[in-house]
Amino acid sequence: MRIHLIGLGKMGANLALNLKDKKHEVIGFDLNDQARAQLNKAGIETHDELASFLVRKDHARLIVWLMIPNGLVDQVIEQVIPYLNEKDIIIDGGNSNFNKSIERYNKLKELDIDFVDVGTSGGTEGARYGACLMVGGTKEVFEYLKPVYHDVSAKDGYGYMGGPGSGHFVKMVHNGIEYGMMQAIGEGFELIEASNFDVDYERLTKVWNSGSIIESALVGYIGNAFSKDAKLSEIQGRIDDSGEGKWMVEEALNLEVAIPVIAQSLFTRYKSRDEHKFSEKVVAAMRNEFGGHAVYKKKK
Amino acid sequence: MRIHLIGLGKMGANLALNLKDKKHEVIGFDLNDQARAQLNKAGIETHDELASFLVRKDHARLIVWLMIPNGLVDQVIEQVIPYLNEKDIIIDGGNSNFNKSIERYNKLKELDIDFVDVGTSGGTEGARYGACLMVGGTKEVFEYLKPVYHDVSAKDGYGYMGGPGSGHFVKMVHNGIEYGMMQAIGEGFELIEASNFDVDYERLTKVWNSGSIIESALVGYIGNAFSKDAKLSEIQGRIDDSGEGKWMVEEALNLEVAIPVIAQSLFTRYKSRDEHKFSEKVVAAMRNEFGGHAVYKKKK
Repeated sequence: MRIHLIGLGKMGANLALNLKDKKHEVIGFDLNDQARAQLNKAGIETHDELASFLVRKDHARLIVWLMIPNGLVDQVIEQVIPYLNEKDIIIDGGNSNFNKSIERYNKLKELDIDFVDVGTSGGTEGARYGACLMVGGTKEVFEYLKPVYHDVSAKDGYGYMGGPGSGHFVKMVHNGIEYGMMQAIGEGFELIEASNFDVDYERLTKVWNSGSIIESALVGYIGNAFSKDAKLSEIQGRIDDSGEGKWMVEEALNLEVAIPVIAQSLFTRYKSRDEHKFSEKVVAAMRNEFGGHAVYKKKK
Repeated sequence: MRIHLIGLGKMGANLALNLKDKKHEVIGFDLNDQARAQLNKAGIETHDELASFLVRKDHARLIVWLMIPNGLVDQVIEQVIPYLNEKDIIIDGGNSNFNKSIERYNKLKELDIDFVDVGTSGGTEGARYGACLMVGGTKEVFEYLKPVYHDVSAKDGYGYMGGPGSGHFVKMVHNGIEYGMMQAIGEGFELIEASNFDVDYERLTKVWNSGSIIESALVGYIGNAFSKDAKLSEIQGRIDDSGEGKWMVEEALNLEVAIPVIAQSLFTRYKSRDEHKFSEKVVAAMRNEFGGHAVYKKKK
């Protein structure tokens, strides 16, 4: 199929190469010259103007696949709409909030344009050689695009998750689970590191990933990190997040569902960035006031 | 090598078959007639009396491998000691507390008997076809037994973790991480179940285990469960534990290390068994007292 791919960053560029390997016709769009140049070298046509990019070559439905930061999705859709006809398809393969995806679906439905939310997992390696795709939108469009999903995903690595928004909803849940799993692994190593045992972490991850119950992609990733830096002495314990954990806790509040471990994992990330330690100051100050317990003054 | 295996339950019996497949000489011990009969059928010699079981056939070090509940370990070691000579080896392949394993190592060292703590993961399938073994004890005994570990474990699935106790320590951490991972997965499905989306859970686990970041043995196990019971309607949400999570939280308190997600996962298991809900009653009663908020009376 012919795919018009907008966003040639790490994920988009790898997806473009993946599509090309699988004999799909992929045309790229990015404002960044370097991103375009890199794909041109690989023999992929690219554009930096929508007028030349969104050209219809036959009567097939135009497929626009977005791999862009979620803050840009509405704006890009607005700019793309004038080039689209009825039954054309916009796929959002980024990490958008599922509520937004439902809104976008409904808005585009009024124009008879099909909107598909696709949660994409597997990182850049996955995008290049076999992604994991959680697909929302209508069943009709899912079936229409199935050959493409089949080709760019790992074996069994795509599926229809339900109606509009379900793809990004399930991707959000995936990321929340990921936060909890990562935090549990982090805590495990924290305890080993605090103990008197002298464990080779890289070896340990190899053993754990050879038939244990916690065998997992994440144990493999941390094993790679330990192989480069045995005690992670070169990095800071400061953890960013890209929003999905926050959305998940918001949705848990909305549905009044308890997800304590995932919430704690998110809060641990917030805490990891906190140089201020204000809550700790408050507690230390109270202990000093009522019990005369030591407070540690700031070093000047 | 010749292995005297005590405990022919699910794990022990599978390990015995695994050892036999790999051409080791395995002799089994269990008081349970059925357990012995089953191994006899597979051509494995078994005993229910130590005097006939622990017979020395040559000058090699006698190797006694325990696969028994941790509450029986001290008692069995006491009964085995009279049959052992200097340099003989006792392996505890069960889930013992690492502090106990250090004590046992020291006590047996006085008799010049070598004690090895082996954390065993991978469940019954692993024991049968390729276990994951985290090995403590001395390096000398590790090297001596290496051919056996190599044969019964998955590829790369065994390793020396450090001194006495390290095998069971690292297995305890493994189980703590397992609790956290399982709880995160549970919370993820809880949110999906509470939502308006109608997701096929079995299909979802297949997709997640095909190239996603949360690809893991645990997602596979819950996928198997969903394939048999799509909404888990046949089982209760009551979770037992076998002690390792508790030991891990105890050790975190001992070392003053924060492991909030693993602690919360353990507490969630305790809460799952609580039909009394006393803390919830206390909170509901207080809300009623200060704010006149509704309390729900027990149904008679």
